[in-house]
Amino acid sequence: MGRNLAESARDLRMVLPDGASEAVAGVEDLLVEVAGRAPEGLVAPTLEALMAGGKRLRPILLILSARMGDPEWEELLTASGAVEALHTATLIHDDVVDKAESRRGKPTTVTAYGRETAVATGDYLFAEAFYGLAEVGNPRLVRIFAEAAMGMSAGELEQYRSSRAPVEIEAYVEHIRMKTAGLFRAGCVAGGTLGGLSLRQIDALATYGQALGLAFQVSDDVMDLVGEPGLMGKSVGTDLAEGTMTLPVIFALEEGDGVVIRRVLETSNPTPELLEAGIEAVLATDAIKKTEAWALEKVEAAVEGLKLLPDGTERAILEAIANEVVGRDA
Amino acid sequence: MGRNLAESARDLRMVLPDGASEAVAGVEDLLVEVAGRAPEGLVAPTLEALMAGGKRLRPILLILSARMGDPEWEELLTASGAVEALHTATLIHDDVVDKAESRRGKPTTVTAYGRETAVATGDYLFAEAFYGLAEVGNPRLVRIFAEAAMGMSAGELEQYRSSRAPVEIEAYVEHIRMKTAGLFRAGCVAGGTLGGLSLRQIDALATYGQALGLAFQVSDDVMDLVGEPGLMGKSVGTDLAEGTMTLPVIFALEEGDGVVIRRVLETSNPTPELLEAGIEAVLATDAIKKTEAWALEKVEAAVEGLKLLPDGTERAILEAIANEVVGRDA
Repeated sequence: MGRNLAESARDLRMVLPDGASEAVAGVEDLLVEVAGRAPEGLVAPTLEALMAGGKRLRPILLILSARMGDPEWEELLTASGAVEALHTATLIHDDVVDKAESRRGKPTTVTAYGRETAVATGDYLFAEAFYGLAEVGNPRLVRIFAEAAMGMSAGELEQYRSSRAPVEIEAYVEHIRMKTAGLFRAGCVAGGTLGGLSLRQIDALATYGQALGLAFQVSDDVMDLVGEPGLMGKSVGTDLAEGTMTLPVIFALEEGDGVVIRRVLETSNPTPELLEAGIEAVLATDAIKKTEAWALEKVEAAVEGLKLLPDGTERAILEAIANEVVGRDA
Repeated sequence: MGRNLAESARDLRMVLPDGASEAVAGVEDLLVEVAGRAPEGLVAPTLEALMAGGKRLRPILLILSARMGDPEWEELLTASGAVEALHTATLIHDDVVDKAESRRGKPTTVTAYGRETAVATGDYLFAEAFYGLAEVGNPRLVRIFAEAAMGMSAGELEQYRSSRAPVEIEAYVEHIRMKTAGLFRAGCVAGGTLGGLSLRQIDALATYGQALGLAFQVSDDVMDLVGEPGLMGKSVGTDLAEGTMTLPVIFALEEGDGVVIRRVLETSNPTPELLEAGIEAVLATDAIKKTEAWALEKVEAAVEGLKLLPDGTERAILEAIANEVVGRDA
């Protein structure tokens, strides 16, 4: 697979057409306002969480989807801010659950401010997102995001993340569909809705968003095994060491005898040597190739569906994002 | 003050007019459905949290408010389920923050299922509430509840609850307005909106709901000092022992020299003797009387405002609830 999508999203902002680029800047300002009007005691943690280096990928997807139609400017900014607020709320609560100390190289909210403030900050951002969506005044938007948020709540369950037990591909895909792909999908659907696109076009955006989210997640899974240490502020093999099942690991277990991989998964705090042996055992199979092929198939069908949308810069960028995540040259 | 409002709410359900009574039963069924359609792993904790003995006071307020007008049945149930789901979500997250072991004599979600599941269950109920509100299709409802939820997130902050430091009355009232009164208010406003009442009538319901919520909270504060042990599954002096500031304690500190009270507040895990001395020191002042007078003033003005609403059983019950909470015979 190519570079991590989060990295490429940073570059993407340089090539966004003017209107979309202005909208992303508008979202940045809006997020500062959201933090500024937080209740006393939550302003600083909210601001820090929102400004902790997120690449704004979900707002960008929403904005590009919307601008293939004719969205109202304020509605576009509000909905884009809401998708980022929801995403950030989930990250904060995830870190509370995991007791994660850092994210993107910075202390997490729970580490910097404690459990109380972290739970409250997540809840505030969650409520603020729906407040913004209500202001837009379209109940469909609220439903789209509430549905995504219900799925994300299931994605927080550690029993899925650190199962240390065999997981079927179907169960895993359902898990990442809820945990990651649902909000990508919601952003694209919300954008299409605000742009006034046809139902068929919005459906195509839904398929695209979901496929992109799935590919994004498994790209992250692959990076855990083949990534350069430190690139994303995350060391190689973290998922494997924590016993978190990922698609390449599932493929590797299906294929080989998997004794070493199973031993790593079953060991809390495996030694560096054991972890290294586990990674090598996965890489000795066709697991990475199968994962890439799996993601490519999803993304190809989704990009094909985008043909229903107006030809132009926005669609070209959506296609480029999808190609980038599966490491395919456009 | 009279009996705890939660106790009287149980009796109230026996005197509700037929339509309201059926609606409360409908909400119970709906909450079971909400739990049933939770993601895998969240069904049991959601069901247990929703069925843990809540008195459905907030749905009852919403239903009574609505039925002074002419609400659509399904919308009424959905919104009433949403207010209870939101309330339950907040309780679950509060217990995560406090590491509380039991509530209403039963193990909390965090105790029974762990932090991961408790955070996720709260998030699910939160999302489910907004999903339900979106189904009703009125963006004003979403805004009303999102606003209340933003306030409740601030109410979760321990720095307000266990300040162990002097608190001004104004700051305390603002805190309980956000923590407790906001959702009472939202329930009444949502009910009035669904009933199609006039804006002036909805305003009167907002004032009523907020005053009732404030009186409800300070009634709870008083019970912490004068309640019978075990009645509410909560021992006497819990707030004081935890250093949580309450209105009678603030009044007592304003009045007397307060040395003993301050010592209790500043001591983690005070001895039973010290705690007893602290309670006696509060009771030796006019703090309880002042708290009751404070609540009575709020409630009287709010009940006066209800005269804008149609005379009938629903209004009479709202008045009776308010009188009960301030211990005034109707």
